[in-house]
Amino acid sequence: MSAAASQPDLLHEVAIELGDRSYPIVIGTGLLGDASAWAQVPRAAAAMVVTNDKVAPLYLERLVAALQGRFPQIHHVVLPDGEEHKDWQTLNRIFDALLSQGCDRKTVLFALGGGVVGDMTGFAAACYMRGVPFVQVPTTLLAQVDSSVGGKTAINHPLGKNMIGAFHQPVRVVCDLDTLATLPPREFSAGLAEVIKYGPIADMAFLDWIEANLAALLRREPEAVAYAVRRSCEIKGWVVGQDEREGGLRAILNFGHTFGHAIEAGLGYGEWLHGEAVGCGMVMAADLSRRLGLVDEAFTHRLTELVREAGLPVRGPRLGVDRYFELMRLDKKAEAGDIRFVVIESPGHAGVRPAPEAVVREVLQHCTA
Amino acid sequence: MSAAASQPDLLHEVAIELGDRSYPIVIGTGLLGDASAWAQVPRAAAAMVVTNDKVAPLYLERLVAALQGRFPQIHHVVLPDGEEHKDWQTLNRIFDALLSQGCDRKTVLFALGGGVVGDMTGFAAACYMRGVPFVQVPTTLLAQVDSSVGGKTAINHPLGKNMIGAFHQPVRVVCDLDTLATLPPREFSAGLAEVIKYGPIADMAFLDWIEANLAALLRREPEAVAYAVRRSCEIKGWVVGQDEREGGLRAILNFGHTFGHAIEAGLGYGEWLHGEAVGCGMVMAADLSRRLGLVDEAFTHRLTELVREAGLPVRGPRLGVDRYFELMRLDKKAEAGDIRFVVIESPGHAGVRPAPEAVVREVLQHCTA
Repeated sequence: MSAAASQPDLLHEVAIELGDRSYPIVIGTGLLGDASAWAQVPRAAAAMVVTNDKVAPLYLERLVAALQGRFPQIHHVVLPDGEEHKDWQTLNRIFDALLSQGCDRKTVLFALGGGVVGDMTGFAAACYMRGVPFVQVPTTLLAQVDSSVGGKTAINHPLGKNMIGAFHQPVRVVCDLDTLATLPPREFSAGLAEVIKYGPIADMAFLDWIEANLAALLRREPEAVAYAVRRSCEIKGWVVGQDEREGGLRAILNFGHTFGHAIEAGLGYGEWLHGEAVGCGMVMAADLSRRLGLVDEAFTHRLTELVREAGLPVRGPRLGVDRYFELMRLDKKAEAGDIRFVVIESPGHAGVRPAPEAVVREVLQHCTA
Repeated sequence: MSAAASQPDLLHEVAIELGDRSYPIVIGTGLLGDASAWAQVPRAAAAMVVTNDKVAPLYLERLVAALQGRFPQIHHVVLPDGEEHKDWQTLNRIFDALLSQGCDRKTVLFALGGGVVGDMTGFAAACYMRGVPFVQVPTTLLAQVDSSVGGKTAINHPLGKNMIGAFHQPVRVVCDLDTLATLPPREFSAGLAEVIKYGPIADMAFLDWIEANLAALLRREPEAVAYAVRRSCEIKGWVVGQDEREGGLRAILNFGHTFGHAIEAGLGYGEWLHGEAVGCGMVMAADLSRRLGLVDEAFTHRLTELVREAGLPVRGPRLGVDRYFELMRLDKKAEAGDIRFVVIESPGHAGVRPAPEAVVREVLQHCTA
């Protein structure tokens, strides 16, 4: 990076180690418009920047300008914003753009936006001509700390979230912290849910740090945000490096997601933000862990308060207990109809297991309102 | 296999060597209804058989009966037959069936049918919950000798054939030669195009054998057909084993396909069968090879006559030279707008290269009518 464009104290690089699919996550300020941030992206005749109608007016021009020197042709496609558009129709707009521009199978896709743009661009890259390279350029906290890392890509199906997708690793992730300045508070809080997640499943010292720095994070102080992004990426990279395709360990990253996905699908995609549903889902999954005798009341109380103070809901919507079960049975971790939950086995350690239906019913009754 | 159900002299197994993605191709008679043919498929709570409305009345019941002992639940979905249905709408019917039956991510998909069913089922398996296992059960000659082997899966896009897809290897390929008995002559000939293909690109002794046994093949004599399927799978396996994701060598399997895909797309999918377009495309690619000074007139004449005698077209439709170019520029092998052709470098050896536009124009003028 050029010295002028970045503040060295905020510049970090986290390596994701996956053999010949390894890649770096670059975290810093001023990266979007810095040509040197893109100097290691594979060369090709064309780049295709995929973004949405919220992000495009803010950052598209800056990114395209920085890519000029590297790609003879730079195309873009602007999708409608929102989880409710994470479907085949919208995905197909990426394919339409690629084919109508005559993009070949070396074309590099750039996902400029949040989790929805990243998931859809990644899936388009996985499928276009059976696979082209792509770069994640996450502009939301949630995408920077979670969804842009690890190669999970997908679209939703009316019967379930992320049901159609692929494992397809990006060739690079570039997290420009400056983009977080424009995030609405609700979206910033949603991102904090995934930051908080890494504490109970993997690193209680990080949970301590988040508690101690929550006010600084909510004020978006650069040093605090930079550390939160970096540490989140380190933990995620450590998990994904051991279990890329979720044969086992990786499922712990879904802490809070079994309940959370049910909330999202039950209310209709886009009603709650994904991070809001996950925040509430973690409270529910912690309550389940307590009822299973794995953690104590003090632990669940602590996590609940942190989620609440991060600006996230701690009580689920009253969808009805049976409806929750119906939705959770569609979870990808379910096997032969048995729902499997990510629980906290002990603070800092998570596991995946089924749970007695009666206990889950208690959780749903206790944690919804 | 049980001794009663198969004729040992017709039973072959060809190994596809791809590390932890290796799998066998089992070739024989009486396999579809023989439970022992399915004994090595991974266990799961459910199987989903995908087939089409032509194949279902003939073979669905027999396969489902043979799978009963292995899967507690066996679902099926029947798609409309034909290349014109190899699209997202039809693919989505597989996802609808999987999700509405609550199929989990261990569910095994079975592709019972020709190339279209195999490509779509394979792509559905690649994407459903980011990847589930699938078994190819090809019932056409074309699928048995080519499309069911090697893990290429895809659907078409209005702007190009097989543009959206994945590399996803089956866990097993079971070629029951009995299913070829019900193939219409036109479809059998279409399959012969891909059999013939292996000669000029890899094995001139096999081309000699095809010439000597063409009458027996056209009469569908079991020994001749069994050998043609086996040798085709051996050659394809040898190529794919060296270059699974088409970084180089694998492209030779596309001999005749650059011209052929243009014919298919130009006439509208389903007008000519894929194998018919490939047969004609091989004649055109051989003519190109001759005009480039790589092979002689005797070679192109020999190949043209074999294609003709197999019951395939040897002259392309008059789409217009410019239209051919427009369509060929969308070929997946094209790079930065340069069309790249599979040519015969010398009999039995193929390569991939661009060609002067003027020479390709001569080919198109000479070989269309």
